[in-house]
Amino acid sequence: MHRVHCRRRLQQLLRAFLFVFGATLAGSAAADIPKELYDALGIRSDAPPKELYDALVKRYRDPAQGAGKGKFADLWQPIPFSKYFDPASFYSPPSSVAEIAGRKDCVDCHEKESPGWVHQWRQSAHANLGKIRTLKPSDARYYQKARLEEVERNLRSLGKLAANDSLKEVGCIDCHVDINRSAKADHRKDLRMPTADVCASCHLTEFAERESERDTAVWPQGVERTRGRPSHALDYQDNVETGIWAGMPQREIAEGCTACHMNQNKCDTCHTRHSFSLIEARKPEACGTCHSGIDHNNIEAYLLSKHGTQYTMLGSNWNWNVPLKDAIAKGGQTAPTCQSCHMEYKGKYGHNVVRKVRWANYPLVPGIAEAVVNSEWSKQRLDAWVKTCTQCHSERFSRAYLDLMDKATLQGLEKVKEAQAVVSRLHADGLLPGQKTNRPAPPAPEKDAPMEFFQLMWSKGNNPTNIEFEAKAMGENDLPKLFVGVAHVNPGGWTYTEGWEPLIRSYSKIMDFDTQIRERAATTQPKGSGVGSRAALALLAPTGSDSIWFVGLGGVLVLGGGALIWRSRRGRDNR
Amino acid sequence: MHRVHCRRRLQQLLRAFLFVFGATLAGSAAADIPKELYDALGIRSDAPPKELYDALVKRYRDPAQGAGKGKFADLWQPIPFSKYFDPASFYSPPSSVAEIAGRKDCVDCHEKESPGWVHQWRQSAHANLGKIRTLKPSDARYYQKARLEEVERNLRSLGKLAANDSLKEVGCIDCHVDINRSAKADHRKDLRMPTADVCASCHLTEFAERESERDTAVWPQGVERTRGRPSHALDYQDNVETGIWAGMPQREIAEGCTACHMNQNKCDTCHTRHSFSLIEARKPEACGTCHSGIDHNNIEAYLLSKHGTQYTMLGSNWNWNVPLKDAIAKGGQTAPTCQSCHMEYKGKYGHNVVRKVRWANYPLVPGIAEAVVNSEWSKQRLDAWVKTCTQCHSERFSRAYLDLMDKATLQGLEKVKEAQAVVSRLHADGLLPGQKTNRPAPPAPEKDAPMEFFQLMWSKGNNPTNIEFEAKAMGENDLPKLFVGVAHVNPGGWTYTEGWEPLIRSYSKIMDFDTQIRERAATTQPKGSGVGSRAALALLAPTGSDSIWFVGLGGVLVLGGGALIWRSRRGRDNR
Amino acid sequence: MHRVHCRRRLQQLLRAFLFVFGATLAGSAAADIPKELYDALGIRSDAPPKELYDALVKRYRDPAQGAGKGKFADLWQPIPFSKYFDPASFYSPPSSVAEIAGRKDCVDCHEKESPGWVHQWRQSAHANLGKIRTLKPSDARYYQKARLEEVERNLRSLGKLAANDSLKEVGCIDCHVDINRSAKADHRKDLRMPTADVCASCHLTEFAERESERDTAVWPQGVERTRGRPSHALDYQDNVETGIWAGMPQREIAEGCTACHMNQNKCDTCHTRHSFSLIEARKPEACGTCHSGIDHNNIEAYLLSKHGTQYTMLGSNWNWNVPLKDAIAKGGQTAPTCQSCHMEYKGKYGHNVVRKVRWANYPLVPGIAEAVVNSEWSKQRLDAWVKTCTQCHSERFSRAYLDLMDKATLQGLEKVKEAQAVVSRLHADGLLPGQKTNRPAPPAPEKDAPMEFFQLMWSKGNNPTNIEFEAKAMGENDLPKLFVGVAHVNPGGWTYTEGWEPLIRSYSKIMDFDTQIRERAATTQPKGSGVGSRAALALLAPTGSDSIWFVGLGGVLVLGGGALIWRSRRGRDNR
Repeated sequence: MHRVHCRRRLQQLLRAFLFVFGATLAGSAAADIPKELYDALGIRSDAPPKELYDALVKRYRDPAQGAGKGKFADLWQPIPFSKYFDPASFYSPPSSVAEIAGRKDCVDCHEKESPGWVHQWRQSAHANLGKIRTLKPSDARYYQKARLEEVERNLRSLGKLAANDSLKEVGCIDCHVDINRSAKADHRKDLRMPTADVCASCHLTEFAERESERDTAVWPQGVERTRGRPSHALDYQDNVETGIWAGMPQREIAEGCTACHMNQNKCDTCHTRHSFSLIEARKPEACGTCHSGIDHNNIEAYLLSKHGTQYTMLGSNWNWNVPLKDAIAKGGQTAPTCQSCHMEYKGKYGHNVVRKVRWANYPLVPGIAEAVVNSEWSKQRLDAWVKTCTQCHSERFSRAYLDLMDKATLQGLEKVKEAQAVVSRLHADGLLPGQKTNRPAPPAPEKDAPMEFFQLMWSKGNNPTNIEFEAKAMGENDLPKLFVGVAHVNPGGWTYTEGWEPLIRSYSKIMDFDTQIRERAATTQPKGSGVGSRAALALLAPTGSDSIWFVGLGGVLVLGGGALIWRSRRGRDNR
Repeated sequence: MHRVHCRRRLQQLLRAFLFVFGATLAGSAAADIPKELYDALGIRSDAPPKELYDALVKRYRDPAQGAGKGKFADLWQPIPFSKYFDPASFYSPPSSVAEIAGRKDCVDCHEKESPGWVHQWRQSAHANLGKIRTLKPSDARYYQKARLEEVERNLRSLGKLAANDSLKEVGCIDCHVDINRSAKADHRKDLRMPTADVCASCHLTEFAERESERDTAVWPQGVERTRGRPSHALDYQDNVETGIWAGMPQREIAEGCTACHMNQNKCDTCHTRHSFSLIEARKPEACGTCHSGIDHNNIEAYLLSKHGTQYTMLGSNWNWNVPLKDAIAKGGQTAPTCQSCHMEYKGKYGHNVVRKVRWANYPLVPGIAEAVVNSEWSKQRLDAWVKTCTQCHSERFSRAYLDLMDKATLQGLEKVKEAQAVVSRLHADGLLPGQKTNRPAPPAPEKDAPMEFFQLMWSKGNNPTNIEFEAKAMGENDLPKLFVGVAHVNPGGWTYTEGWEPLIRSYSKIMDFDTQIRERAATTQPKGSGVGSRAALALLAPTGSDSIWFVGLGGVLVLGGGALIWRSRRGRDNR
Repeated sequence: MHRVHCRRRLQQLLRAFLFVFGATLAGSAAADIPKELYDALGIRSDAPPKELYDALVKRYRDPAQGAGKGKFADLWQPIPFSKYFDPASFYSPPSSVAEIAGRKDCVDCHEKESPGWVHQWRQSAHANLGKIRTLKPSDARYYQKARLEEVERNLRSLGKLAANDSLKEVGCIDCHVDINRSAKADHRKDLRMPTADVCASCHLTEFAERESERDTAVWPQGVERTRGRPSHALDYQDNVETGIWAGMPQREIAEGCTACHMNQNKCDTCHTRHSFSLIEARKPEACGTCHSGIDHNNIEAYLLSKHGTQYTMLGSNWNWNVPLKDAIAKGGQTAPTCQSCHMEYKGKYGHNVVRKVRWANYPLVPGIAEAVVNSEWSKQRLDAWVKTCTQCHSERFSRAYLDLMDKATLQGLEKVKEAQAVVSRLHADGLLPGQKTNRPAPPAPEKDAPMEFFQLMWSKGNNPTNIEFEAKAMGENDLPKLFVGVAHVNPGGWTYTEGWEPLIRSYSKIMDFDTQIRERAATTQPKGSGVGSRAALALLAPTGSDSIWFVGLGGVLVLGGGALIWRSRRGRDNR
């Protein structure tokens, strides 16, 4: 009893100490680090920065927890550019540069060698810490002063800054060799390519928020999905552990995936080096290079929505120096950006962007539709979204729209499943073109099966057949675009340009093909071989009994679980 | 005789009275209300505001003239979100909000509940009427002062503002309960969702201009087209009276159409609530959310044209506070926006955007090509376009380009008709896949036929076949994009990326299919059954005699009326 | 001997004279005219402006060197709008305008007739020469003062400006009649539509830089490519000498090509009349109207890349008055525009944009892959690119990325060649649909063959078959987009949205088709006819021996020259 009392007293003292010295992150007004992170790391939420940093970095660098080449490491080799995608695994200092240089030398020499770097940096906060210290409370950027002090507390806690010292600048050497280093450095030995944990020594809150995605990108039981999609914090693992990525021979094509799926390794995919502009970080296009295109056209859907056109037309009058939380009230923002909705959670803003995730762009993932329709997990996240929307809309409006979104998505899903079931039956009946004569196996670790993800990225002979590609693309491209369109309130995005109309087009191709191939089979094969036109006709009959029902004002939807066809992008042996 | 004399005197007196009190709209410098509107309403062009308002609103709310659920009302039910698309039909005040609140309470409470609304409104003219009153003549926005006075004249005429009173602000309660209301209101009983006629009590000129589209969206005899396409004023009617829209079971997909086709009901599709920014209303992206995509890619075509790139690159230096009529001379505008050309008519600017419409995006509409080529209707509208273009181009240049535009469109049309005729013959010969075995009927009110609009939005079994989808999409998507591309001076928009090259691709699919299906039929069916390869070969021969000829410098075009295949998007029984 | 000495003395005197009067272009700080131009014209690099101008214009106007209607002149007729695409060939003054007008009359009358022209011009440097003369050295535009003086030196050399005179303005009459003209002009007789050589009388340096593309758009031996693609200076010749362009009956569709391929004739495709804004000329969208779309989506790829998003998000803070060479150091530019990289050559900036060209967007051009992989030509141009990239990146980074770019392109190329070889064999075996029954010949000068460029722009009956279109589009559209995507660092541009994934889709279509058509042929044709499924199966075996090998860290690529299928866009008889 006495022992417990003593421990409590000690804890109280420690906390008092930490409070006085401002050494806990909890004191950071901006922090939005979820409880789940602390639980997962086994530390207290008021742990000092060093403890949090050490725990985070230990996990971050652990190959067993997603660092490095991944489980298919034996199957692929890096290309020369890989050192910039995954510096921790592949970067080594340049052997050709002999200079041993100090803080000032970097700037002097590189102003000639690669002037872009230097001039970008000169515009950055890193080069202008003094200006931040003198900001007046009336300045929209005044909040940065507190952030700088927090950075210094972090560095002191890590032993990188003396108690009575202050940070003068963040120059080349700080990130590329060691923070606050005064000694000279040897290009051939000391140079590093900064990874996210390098940024973390100063920006610990942001790193912790980001890393917390590992702990909140959780799925209800039955949902066959990784944490690395959607989490930025594990996206490189998910990339290198996707079977066809590791297995395909065209490495420079494969690395096109990596060019986005590497946020796990680096912060500058969003915060472009070397100006690291906060204004950029608040604008939607910062997300656009990756969140665009054939299977997650988020930026396109947003920019043509009323939200996006407001940004395009009026954004130049908004004050972008204002932090996200004040954007509406003080920044004059009249419509949301990506960041407004996706970095918000229950009124706070941070770098965990997956806490409200429900469909996560891919409605065909096994189990996700059922989870969205009927789970406490879904209900809580929907409520969090309603809180987001009610910044500018009524609750009734928000719920009505989110209901529309879910139902439209389910309607698209149903169409995809119908079409994919037809292709499955053709495969089962051995009727796909060349199925028995010219169907090479995919490269390891992939194994052949119909409508696999590898079929969008690899081909040989009659693998994939066109109808498989078509059916896979319905689920992997058109259906996600339908969802993205409706989620971002872009009418053409779910009903005609993307989504529904393309689904109808592909559906008609698949049905045509099925009818023709079975008619032909019926004329060339013996009667009773069971390959007639029944597959297509079967669609007119009710689907099987292993279905769940979604009943709303607008109608009734069947989720035929039995017909659900989806393969993870990860290696098949991982399931 | 004396009686007539008296009536005239009375009218003269009335007009004098109206003139003194400034109560006619004719006095509004900005008004551009066409004569056709007054004729249709049976009132004089100098009628007092109240008379115009009453006549307009009576027609606007009349189900027989397009209000409400439409002729297929029995076939569809609203979804929860429908109350925001068609408030007049589906909105009722929220039962969950008990507050009885006055003018100031709205702002106080909603600043916490839904801050976006309040902050948007604070930026609006509605919240800053006082600032408008004090504008100096040197200010580009000085013209707004006269508009505000016009608004007050309208309100006085409607009995909503006392003669000696002035409007202090337009707050939440004015639009959502009643204009200039001083009493408190009960959320559960009094709340309304503003429709266009609510805006009209102040903005009568703009509403009248918009409503005049009903009267000027006229087609020459023989053109099978509604007024609701292209008119904004009847677009909701056209939406709900499109057969497949009403009939398709996927209501949340169908409502994706409504998300644009509801300008009839609301003004905030262009004038985004709650800032109602005039700057936004003058920028092209305001039109882009709806005028984009697979079958009317107006904004995309514009933005990549020289007109659009000028806007993108230099627009930030143009003065957007200047009204449209002064944009070139005073606003520094060096290229047109959507508004510059489409809201202009013979030198004046207004909210009727259909008075110059000729092709109206859909060159396959029965009769339209003939009308464009050879009608007084077309000639007059072309002349009006030449007037538009000569703001920045010579007449010779303008006419040469418009000639290019018409001929390129006709060339695309010819290609579509050739392909569609092949599909028609396949259908007539019963040769489409599954045509006799697996072709479910579409949902009522649609009736089955080849290349119907419903086939882009609905599918089951072998209806539509892929080749029908392809041929329908040529006419409904690629040809409109060809037209839109050439109309907006976007080279890739008519010759290669959109338009022509996609038409060649689809044409090759259809011809291939025809050849193969007929070859196969010829081998499996008895000789002389008439399903051989003649259909495709027939294309090499001249088309039938029921054609019109379009002769210009560039060549000769045949408009084979007999081969023309087009179905309106409206219900078939409507024709 | 004495004679030689005398000549030398004379030359020295002449040069001294020229130096004193500043009459050589070599003195222009901004000039970047390559030696190749002077060699080709047979003049010295310090020739006086008049000599350079005369030599340039002589070549420019010479039909034997690319001016005018081209070698297929007999096959096509201009449309009314052609006078604006190729004024030298087709423009004549308007017969309908009788006015005889002087300098001031133009402005007075056209301010009413076509106000856009006048107001655009009023914003131009042309209308504000006086302001340029008074610019202070501290002004970013101060450099324009020297340019204006250079312009005057040019005019004096051409005899268009007296030695002691200065240019007051550049008004309508200067470009549309004659530079510095004081006499009145007759619309019906004197009016001209300015071509590039008109601009050259003032802007000689820029014209010479542009014209030098003729001399540097050179290809290594074995590369079957014209100079008119990529050179702007000969792009009109390349347009009118493309067989199908000249031969296709749809002239208004064909002229959609001309709408871009006419830079040879005019400068205002980039420098939009009549403001000729330098700010516009520095922004990426200036290139976008033409460099966009289905087969060279440069602007789209750029705008979504990190380079492009930096421009979109931060560009409004860059100083666009700064010339390109100072953009990074003085303009605050943190990412490149099109101009930054493509107008730069070894640190200087100019109007020759083809000196670093290697792939030039079309990796399927015969010989280009071999040249890129293994030639001194390629190595030197790669080095020039490395110099470009190292403005902002390290050499190691730049070379690693350019290596990735080349290999990804080769990987796409291999996929295209595999698919095209299959179509070639189908054609050789006479198995394409309708090949023997319904394959009309293309219009002259084109001759029929599989996978010709004309098949993307013309169709009749079964020419092209869909599978030919598909295979041609793989090489003409998808592969260029793959290259453009990777060249502009747009991940979705080479791996999934554009490039690779579309190639897999088309590949699967072609293989499916091949398998099915051969299966069917095998059942209907006599045994041993050799049309079985071997073609597709053959792909599993190694390709032939006439291949070159590209060995890098990332793997081994075979360039099977024997299977290479590409046809120039030019007329076939030209090869």
